[in-house]
Amino acid sequence: MIAAFAWKNDYLEILDQTQLPGKTRYRQLRRIEEVHEAIRTLRVRGAPAIGITAAYGLYLGMRQVAAKSREEFFRALQEKARYLASARPTAVNLSWALAEAQRKLEALPAQDVGALESRLLGLAVALHEDDRRRCQAIAEHGQQLVPAGARILTHCNAGALATGGIGTALGIVYLAHERGRVARVFADESRPVLQGARLTMWELTQGGVPAQLICDNMAAALMGQKQVDLVLVGADRIAADGSVANKIGTYGLAIAARYHGVPFYVAAPLSTFDLATPTGTRIPIETRDEDEIRRVCQRVWITLREAPCWNPAFDVTPPELVTAIVTERGLARPPYAQSVPALLGKVVDG
Amino acid sequence: MIAAFAWKNDYLEILDQTQLPGKTRYRQLRRIEEVHEAIRTLRVRGAPAIGITAAYGLYLGMRQVAAKSREEFFRALQEKARYLASARPTAVNLSWALAEAQRKLEALPAQDVGALESRLLGLAVALHEDDRRRCQAIAEHGQQLVPAGARILTHCNAGALATGGIGTALGIVYLAHERGRVARVFADESRPVLQGARLTMWELTQGGVPAQLICDNMAAALMGQKQVDLVLVGADRIAADGSVANKIGTYGLAIAARYHGVPFYVAAPLSTFDLATPTGTRIPIETRDEDEIRRVCQRVWITLREAPCWNPAFDVTPPELVTAIVTERGLARPPYAQSVPALLGKVVDG
Repeated sequence: MIAAFAWKNDYLEILDQTQLPGKTRYRQLRRIEEVHEAIRTLRVRGAPAIGITAAYGLYLGMRQVAAKSREEFFRALQEKARYLASARPTAVNLSWALAEAQRKLEALPAQDVGALESRLLGLAVALHEDDRRRCQAIAEHGQQLVPAGARILTHCNAGALATGGIGTALGIVYLAHERGRVARVFADESRPVLQGARLTMWELTQGGVPAQLICDNMAAALMGQKQVDLVLVGADRIAADGSVANKIGTYGLAIAARYHGVPFYVAAPLSTFDLATPTGTRIPIETRDEDEIRRVCQRVWITLREAPCWNPAFDVTPPELVTAIVTERGLARPPYAQSVPALLGKVVDG
Repeated sequence: MIAAFAWKNDYLEILDQTQLPGKTRYRQLRRIEEVHEAIRTLRVRGAPAIGITAAYGLYLGMRQVAAKSREEFFRALQEKARYLASARPTAVNLSWALAEAQRKLEALPAQDVGALESRLLGLAVALHEDDRRRCQAIAEHGQQLVPAGARILTHCNAGALATGGIGTALGIVYLAHERGRVARVFADESRPVLQGARLTMWELTQGGVPAQLICDNMAAALMGQKQVDLVLVGADRIAADGSVANKIGTYGLAIAARYHGVPFYVAAPLSTFDLATPTGTRIPIETRDEDEIRRVCQRVWITLREAPCWNPAFDVTPPELVTAIVTERGLARPPYAQSVPALLGKVVDG
């Protein structure tokens, strides 16, 4: 299995996703500044992946500081965490992972800076390992949704490249493929940034999964020809009512799936649920630079340079279109207002 | 108003649409092979436009042959018509225009090959003029569907660039804009060939119509935000039951429109109707080169070079999703099995 990043005893190695699929280029990050740059420029992307990468980056930053006292250590820690969080200001997992690391270190009585540093590395490794296990558990729970000979349609990239493990939606695919149950995966190209074309096609091919690329607007016709048994996507945030914020295009896919009677599944760790947001209409949607649409891969202008565009990064799929949500603790089914809190109640705090 | 092509006394001049919007480049076509190439490679596209272009191409082809007898002329005519029709198999106007020309010529008693040739050119010119008038009539009939302050979503390009006149779907837009009724037109970019981004944005901007570009997968979210009052598209072929073959992505758009209660209108001349095809499932769908998906604008590779792709040029929208069809003879409404033949019966043969 490919990995988006790996801790190499002394440094963090990342697969540079901005170069995919043309070039498989690895980078060695030894300084916090390099980690910040990698997150900011999307060399590392995917909510779980950037949280873990940032935790490693925090360790690298503190190693550079070589603090002389506990006080100096924590002062620097806060400053470094703030610096890393600024790389992707909207990424919730990023600031969450950094705050978690700070909180856990502060709870330690150790005065020895060396011990704090090595504990910080331990936290990053644990976060990484934890995400790996969650991906595995999601994959296991998702198996019941995959019929033999399944033809699965996915959107964007919810795979190994986005997580510290085998992925969420694609984790289910990999395990089902190992068990001989996958006939084919259709990948939506996922305009405007083309994560499906660039990343999902690459990682499925690396994993030996038969994959076929379609443009986003072909999904309905594919379903109309009865070529899709299930739709399987990830999520960026899930509200208390089960509304799913995910990459733009997910909503249209869910409507088409409903029209054709195709089940629509979402795979996401429980950390994706945000019970403080009651409904989908309350999820803030990031609108991104219009040039992402106008200029494909930052290279080819496909329209007038001054063409007005609308470029929301996400859309919200209402709960009535979501057949089930696969988490590391099992499946949530409608009504989500009941099933989601029930699943969250089961979580034991690490 | 811009024109996609023009007969220049001795040759056909076309605006090379593969170069838009970056370059406004014209080409002179003097041989049937050049016309075939222009149609096949989408330098000329849009159902009515390729029908007329092919008629001019047929004349150019027969001029090359310089037949010696009536028999030789008609033998060559059939062969040339078949050759031109092979450039785009789904486009019914193409074979219709060619069959019409053949039929009308065969009805002539003339033995003189020169007279047949010049009559063939006359037929092409008449077809061109006829389409210009039909576009105007469609635009007039469509006005009743456009509320004041309309926000219209369109797909692909059914405009001046696609016809011999002001367009079908966009013809309605231009006339409504002249009358101050259009607040905004949203253009789907229309992957893979991006006719919306490249052509519709260009021609609407040329026409002074406020236009905004979205990726195809954003249409559902836009409707969800109640930003769309009506969807208006063209058609490549309409079956007897009212099933509409149009650019890939139309079907998903129609499903999303239905889900949101947004009316979905098709604008097309009566020549688009193919009563010999009883239902949508019988319409042949052209599958195009996978590189159209893999390599945007024939320049930037967005996925693995050997990535399997599925690239249907069209999809079929079932009649139950079509609110009305606007033709040059007025509106057809469901049930189309009755309303369409009624409209066709009104046509006076030219």
